[in-house]
Amino acid sequence: MKVGFIGLGSMGSGIAANLLKAGHEVTVYNRTASKAEPLVKQGARHALKVADACQGDVVMTMLADDPALEGVTFGDGGILAALRQGAVHSSLSTISVALSEKLASAHAEHGQRYLSSPVFGRPEAAAAGKLFVTVAGTADAVDTCMPLFEAIGQKTFHFGTRPADANLVKLSGNFLITCVIESLAEAMALVGKAGLDQHQFLDFLTSTLFVAPVYKTYGAMIADKKFEPAGFSAPLGWKDNRLVLAAAETLRVPLPLASLIYNRFVTLMAHGGESLDWSAISKLAAEDAGRGK
Amino acid sequence: MKVGFIGLGSMGSGIAANLLKAGHEVTVYNRTASKAEPLVKQGARHALKVADACQGDVVMTMLADDPALEGVTFGDGGILAALRQGAVHSSLSTISVALSEKLASAHAEHGQRYLSSPVFGRPEAAAAGKLFVTVAGTADAVDTCMPLFEAIGQKTFHFGTRPADANLVKLSGNFLITCVIESLAEAMALVGKAGLDQHQFLDFLTSTLFVAPVYKTYGAMIADKKFEPAGFSAPLGWKDNRLVLAAAETLRVPLPLASLIYNRFVTLMAHGGESLDWSAISKLAAEDAGRGK
Amino acid sequence: MKVGFIGLGSMGSGIAANLLKAGHEVTVYNRTASKAEPLVKQGARHALKVADACQGDVVMTMLADDPALEGVTFGDGGILAALRQGAVHSSLSTISVALSEKLASAHAEHGQRYLSSPVFGRPEAAAAGKLFVTVAGTADAVDTCMPLFEAIGQKTFHFGTRPADANLVKLSGNFLITCVIESLAEAMALVGKAGLDQHQFLDFLTSTLFVAPVYKTYGAMIADKKFEPAGFSAPLGWKDNRLVLAAAETLRVPLPLASLIYNRFVTLMAHGGESLDWSAISKLAAEDAGRGK
Amino acid sequence: MKVGFIGLGSMGSGIAANLLKAGHEVTVYNRTASKAEPLVKQGARHALKVADACQGDVVMTMLADDPALEGVTFGDGGILAALRQGAVHSSLSTISVALSEKLASAHAEHGQRYLSSPVFGRPEAAAAGKLFVTVAGTADAVDTCMPLFEAIGQKTFHFGTRPADANLVKLSGNFLITCVIESLAEAMALVGKAGLDQHQFLDFLTSTLFVAPVYKTYGAMIADKKFEPAGFSAPLGWKDNRLVLAAAETLRVPLPLASLIYNRFVTLMAHGGESLDWSAISKLAAEDAGRGK
Repeated sequence: MKVGFIGLGSMGSGIAANLLKAGHEVTVYNRTASKAEPLVKQGARHALKVADACQGDVVMTMLADDPALEGVTFGDGGILAALRQGAVHSSLSTISVALSEKLASAHAEHGQRYLSSPVFGRPEAAAAGKLFVTVAGTADAVDTCMPLFEAIGQKTFHFGTRPADANLVKLSGNFLITCVIESLAEAMALVGKAGLDQHQFLDFLTSTLFVAPVYKTYGAMIADKKFEPAGFSAPLGWKDNRLVLAAAETLRVPLPLASLIYNRFVTLMAHGGESLDWSAISKLAAEDAGRGK
Repeated sequence: MKVGFIGLGSMGSGIAANLLKAGHEVTVYNRTASKAEPLVKQGARHALKVADACQGDVVMTMLADDPALEGVTFGDGGILAALRQGAVHSSLSTISVALSEKLASAHAEHGQRYLSSPVFGRPEAAAAGKLFVTVAGTADAVDTCMPLFEAIGQKTFHFGTRPADANLVKLSGNFLITCVIESLAEAMALVGKAGLDQHQFLDFLTSTLFVAPVYKTYGAMIADKKFEPAGFSAPLGWKDNRLVLAAAETLRVPLPLASLIYNRFVTLMAHGGESLDWSAISKLAAEDAGRGK
Repeated sequence: MKVGFIGLGSMGSGIAANLLKAGHEVTVYNRTASKAEPLVKQGARHALKVADACQGDVVMTMLADDPALEGVTFGDGGILAALRQGAVHSSLSTISVALSEKLASAHAEHGQRYLSSPVFGRPEAAAAGKLFVTVAGTADAVDTCMPLFEAIGQKTFHFGTRPADANLVKLSGNFLITCVIESLAEAMALVGKAGLDQHQFLDFLTSTLFVAPVYKTYGAMIADKKFEPAGFSAPLGWKDNRLVLAAAETLRVPLPLASLIYNRFVTLMAHGGESLDWSAISKLAAEDAGRGK
Repeated sequence: MKVGFIGLGSMGSGIAANLLKAGHEVTVYNRTASKAEPLVKQGARHALKVADACQGDVVMTMLADDPALEGVTFGDGGILAALRQGAVHSSLSTISVALSEKLASAHAEHGQRYLSSPVFGRPEAAAAGKLFVTVAGTADAVDTCMPLFEAIGQKTFHFGTRPADANLVKLSGNFLITCVIESLAEAMALVGKAGLDQHQFLDFLTSTLFVAPVYKTYGAMIADKKFEPAGFSAPLGWKDNRLVLAAAETLRVPLPLASLIYNRFVTLMAHGGESLDWSAISKLAAEDAGRGK
């Protein structure tokens, strides 16, 4: 398939590479052009402008936040202006429910199809084509993009026809991950201060009731206090925390646990946590317990 | 092995049955004697007094809370008085760290061995011999009891020589389960109010990042709002929540998430939740979101 | 002085009336023109357009929120376009720190003076000229407006030269009031459920350690569960709660108590509290305690 | 009146002195006998045993916590054993609702009268005879003690006949004070980080909406970060926080704000705050905001 790919960060680079491997004809665009080089070596065409990446059947976007996605979509030379009638914009980014609704309307007005298709997984999963893809939008648009999703992920979940629903699923999923981080952080601070071996405690948990990968991944980071380099940075994690709170606010749903985690992020940012992994909020439970910096 | 078993509630009955199946010579005691009948039919001896269950190499106790265990241990005719020198008291109950420390001292003074051996799993797991056993105490006492643990559980974890450490592991584990319940409750309230299918959301979660059994078990209960009959009752869940807070207080470890859940339990109890499963605290997130009673 | 006054809600009407009583030449503007009538009878000129209220030395604005103030300030025929060089825009509204900073820049660029001058007090205080005025801006602008502030308030506090500082003071003050409401709500739920007389408890508090007017005013509303008519509506109270959280977020200051109150507002709004006084968040502590709807 | 006084700490010493000044015949007892010396110089009789302080019409107790009061009341030579029929035990200490109920029963069984009479005020107020006395118990017992209350306080409030109600009022009052401390701490962290003058902010608050003494007293301590010497120590403040949570737990009343403050105390204690004033919990909001140790 002829597909454009916009956004070559740590996630996007791996995803685009897997599209190439699957035999798709990929045109990549990135604001900082140098990031396109490795992909060009793997066979990608390099678009120098956003519009050049919008000439195929589908354009995929994988950007850091709402402003970045709005930047490439609206305005002169943006996706809306460049994409042909009937083509699909598949948005992989973790964005707000509100922007997703706005994009759905705008693409519909332009005779284009919009598919909300955020992905779960850290950069290693993106590189390995092992992402989970959560999609919402019309069945025909999903059908169009399914070969692409199969190239980048291990499984695709279709959440109905309203695109923003997939974004809510993504934000809720990330919220649940932060809950795992915070709860492990508190439990580890407790058993650690009692003198127990945190790794042994963790091995027990993850071989019994909490066998899920998130407990293993984040538990190890918490036990090792190893938050650099950031697989998913604290500022981005905080952004997602604010987005789930914003979505919940609109729906009038109180999320006290998300609020608690919000304050963890604010505190982390007040102490210079910008470059750390989002799991670094776990340091705060340890510090509050007097377990050192 | 010749073993006494005290406490034949929904957990204890299944555990004692598995000891019998494994060929051990089991003498059972329960305050309400009628509960012993099914086990007698399976070959157990019926002790009419606590002391009669303390004549073997090991006595296991599986009781609801601290007062119940103190009741059968201390005083005339209690375990301390009846157990022979060198025999082992293996306590399977979820009790306070403080009581565990008190028992360890008391048994040592009486020349007996005390093993803290709380178990993870709901009644079905107890009946199936699929519990996880977390043990702390001297290696020789663990060795003595290992055949018993193998009969009742699928795996045993040894957390060192201080018995109370196993209790802290148990309380921390239960704390983490309440965090799963609360976080799922909030996320489900959110996606539910947005009009998404809660079961589909749950299926997605539990087939991707959150494959752990606790997410499946509790997620289904939350989605179905089915909290009766109680597999593990709200008052007992609250008790464990208070015990982890008490252990953390002694160690000077703040657990804001446990405090949040504490207030959920208080609220549930203020609204007549005594007979419900502990996962019924999830109703509160839904009600706060205006999603009906 | 020749002064324009924009925004004739329950607060603005009382304030404008006091300007007239003090002998100032007042031109009033309100989106819904009929609200101007009573003031016209008291001697005000009626402006049919925003610009007509911007012909004097000072224009005062008293509007519900950021969008309302932005609406009359920016764009064709707005305050920025209409106000003469050197004239003062005195903003009495409770707005965001961010908008205040934007207004300060915009007026400076237009050669005008901007004074942030939010007021404390409910509608009765506004009518009685008993407001407290918190001002920030240049000394000369404060001097210009002082006769006006003296006409509408009992005391004026000057918080330095950065206009947004007065907004932060106002938002922090309102935050502290919500803390009084929440803390009284919890304490009243407790003594009430114990069977104590809430009014007697309140009389005790407000004649000893908590003699401040806020405790009397809100304590009585909580004890009487009387939240209508709204002196200050819940949606506006929630807006201010979000504004203080936004200001704190920008500064990287966690405010866990403001987050707790935020969730109270979300919950209240999920249950149809739009028309109630902001002190109605106190109902939630009572309801959580099982003290009825 | 012939009155015994037990407990000569920083509060009790001032109170006993005022009883002497008012002309009462006071016999004082303190575990550390040397503290009685200054009072003996002022005319007090020195009791070497608890029982010697129980020979009059009334015995007042002013002790640090439940165990201390239980220690002098129960057992051989305790108040219960020594007090004559019909005499009054007036308990000024801040104790649990549960102990107050136990004392009421025990004294009734011994034909004695028990009056719960906790006091509000810091040591300076005790020394100046400016305490507020909250009393609950039978009218005749209150009548008996009224001359004593008038000697030690500026006003007495009678909260009905169930003694424990006065304890709940006292605990609720202290809870409200901690809410003032926490809310001021957060607001001051915010305006402080914004660069505003905290003292000016405080002067504004306490001369307008928050004129109550608690805002002045604690606001100044927070602004000055002066928490030593402790007028009321953090461990005692934490004890009262736990007691209000315990009373609320019994009544099934969630107090989320008290839980938040509970975690502040745990955190303070994890960082060596034992010797500080209870208002030192305010340091944590500042530190979380990155405003240094």
